[in-house]
Amino acid sequence: MQTLDNPIEIASFTPYPIKHLPLDIRLNDTSLSIIWDDNHQSEFHYLWLRDNCHCSECITQLTREQMFEICDVPLDIKPTDAYLTEENRLVINWDNPSHTSQFHPGWLRSHCYSEANLKAKQWSAKVWDKERISTELASYQAQDILQDDKVLLSWLRQLRDDGLTLIKHVATESDSLIEIANRISFIRETNFGTVFNVRAKADANSAAYTDLRLPLHTDLPTRELQPGLQFLHCLVNDATGGESILVDGFKIAEHMQTYYPEEFYSLSTFPMSFYNKDKHSDYRFRGTAIVTDSDNKVVEVRLANFLRGPIDVPAQQTLPLYHAYRRFIELTRDPKFQFFYRLNAGDLIVFDNRRVLHARNAFNLEQGHRHLQGCYVDRDELLSRIRVLERE
Amino acid sequence: MQTLDNPIEIASFTPYPIKHLPLDIRLNDTSLSIIWDDNHQSEFHYLWLRDNCHCSECITQLTREQMFEICDVPLDIKPTDAYLTEENRLVINWDNPSHTSQFHPGWLRSHCYSEANLKAKQWSAKVWDKERISTELASYQAQDILQDDKVLLSWLRQLRDDGLTLIKHVATESDSLIEIANRISFIRETNFGTVFNVRAKADANSAAYTDLRLPLHTDLPTRELQPGLQFLHCLVNDATGGESILVDGFKIAEHMQTYYPEEFYSLSTFPMSFYNKDKHSDYRFRGTAIVTDSDNKVVEVRLANFLRGPIDVPAQQTLPLYHAYRRFIELTRDPKFQFFYRLNAGDLIVFDNRRVLHARNAFNLEQGHRHLQGCYVDRDELLSRIRVLERE
Repeated sequence: MQTLDNPIEIASFTPYPIKHLPLDIRLNDTSLSIIWDDNHQSEFHYLWLRDNCHCSECITQLTREQMFEICDVPLDIKPTDAYLTEENRLVINWDNPSHTSQFHPGWLRSHCYSEANLKAKQWSAKVWDKERISTELASYQAQDILQDDKVLLSWLRQLRDDGLTLIKHVATESDSLIEIANRISFIRETNFGTVFNVRAKADANSAAYTDLRLPLHTDLPTRELQPGLQFLHCLVNDATGGESILVDGFKIAEHMQTYYPEEFYSLSTFPMSFYNKDKHSDYRFRGTAIVTDSDNKVVEVRLANFLRGPIDVPAQQTLPLYHAYRRFIELTRDPKFQFFYRLNAGDLIVFDNRRVLHARNAFNLEQGHRHLQGCYVDRDELLSRIRVLERE
Repeated sequence: MQTLDNPIEIASFTPYPIKHLPLDIRLNDTSLSIIWDDNHQSEFHYLWLRDNCHCSECITQLTREQMFEICDVPLDIKPTDAYLTEENRLVINWDNPSHTSQFHPGWLRSHCYSEANLKAKQWSAKVWDKERISTELASYQAQDILQDDKVLLSWLRQLRDDGLTLIKHVATESDSLIEIANRISFIRETNFGTVFNVRAKADANSAAYTDLRLPLHTDLPTRELQPGLQFLHCLVNDATGGESILVDGFKIAEHMQTYYPEEFYSLSTFPMSFYNKDKHSDYRFRGTAIVTDSDNKVVEVRLANFLRGPIDVPAQQTLPLYHAYRRFIELTRDPKFQFFYRLNAGDLIVFDNRRVLHARNAFNLEQGHRHLQGCYVDRDELLSRIRVLERE
């Protein structure tokens, strides 16, 4: 395998090792085809190739951002000449205006947009039920995450794929979760602050800050972008009750997609409203409880019964939506999906808040104290950090 | 018009003045109809009515959040009895289990989900071109916004509807924009910090921090949730050039929807990738340049040529996407849509970053300095603040 001699020929900080060599090219009407040494064939449109020229005129070298704009050349732009060099670079000469582009084979192959290549790049969550996560829950030591980038990367990949991880032996001083969160990036502030304290208090502006049972939910479905990762760190837990319950919302949604397709359709099509209000704020968001992408794959779950506002869809959708919502909630109550965990002092659970529903049993403070601290970091930060760690 | 004697009968902090009285009710198979004194008719399903019971057993009074769960009653729940009281409350008795619900007529009418009522509640942006905004740009004095809640509300409504406002006579000390932003709420932190400085610097990690021309764009299309409101405050501007250009992206999108429907379809259906990378971060987001809601109404624009990654849709979508993208960019370059404004010291423009595209001309520092400060606040905070100010 060859490596890059000169990364500046690529407008990126990501290395693109050369795993395959281009053997031949063919010039078509609106595109250029490359035949690779493993028989894979790529088709790159001329507009795409011109658009992705990496030369120092098209890309500003300091930030590696594109200064060229594809609107400034004719729609029917065509090479006057194209060839492969001895170093396996693709070179294209353009006229109108005259310009030369050169492409690195590692970068080019990686950006091939054949159906097969696009499909191979797709990420899939590894969904879980109680049985799987009880044996496979990834557990880490706080010190390892703080000191070792390899452990950090392992933790972050697990968080991305399983959506749930446990960190043991975190210091039990207040705000100790911050240095763990900062291993990813900055903490996302919300209308509940940056680090929030979960304990019963007299002036509660959320059911979270009472001793009440909380049903399975995602945090802040009342915001357009629900927080991505939730950190819940236990400082003290001597109270009776208050066990945490976790359910993989993607597993429930996919179960519905298979066994109750009509109800899945309703829940992923008809929106619900979520309200979060107190004397100083009034947050509202209207969105579907299950969010799917253009391939109908589940990418998000949004649910909190205690934050749900009145259903406000047209009359003919009201009963189908209630049926579907009840089905979802009934499934979350099925013990085969519920993972119980009692947080002890020093434990930190980190989970994907847009996927994993969490709940807690009611607790009783007569026998002791219960104090958790929480914070959020978004999915953008998680994925950026994984990419940077993977560059090495 | 009656007002509320006892707001606790409503699980909300919003007042619901009684504008119409219920005259009669009818019990149907799965719903109850109300005939109002203006002949409007509402249909409320029994499940919906039971779900929205405001009693102190169903709603925890401290936070006004729902503790009752609709999954805990039969799907075919029906009243045993229902009537209107002399105070115009709707009372319903249920059995299995036995329970009584009472509804406030102001709250009930406001939550009627007839097509007409749902339609009347829809918000629409007031789109603009150069001609309209040149005469109608809303301009405020910083002191008025800081001191007067009525001016504050006026400014925020304008920001929501026009997506662009100007504030004059803001102090030119560093960080002066913070107290204006805090009149709405907290500032949203991003990978570029909280308050960012826009000036040419040697170690730029974004084209924004050079003296280069920036084409029309939204900020941070590389993040899943683009920042909602952008604040740009001018501390010094003695350089030559560097004028700001603003274009209403919703206007362009709606123009395409009318005159180029196929290209509108491509741009609102086929995603593009946006990359933002430096030595320490690697943000990527894939989404459509035009985002529409379930009624095909434009709700967001996402565009920055210099942050665009290689197009990565299947081959048959590549050329249609390039055609549509070029059309959009060409339209943004049409002078009839472009509003020019030269920021002077003390000026602060605030705009909806998910709607209004901004650009700046290249500038030359030989004749002087140029220093702007910026920050972001999300749409959630804007809308929450408007709702709280409107409660009074």
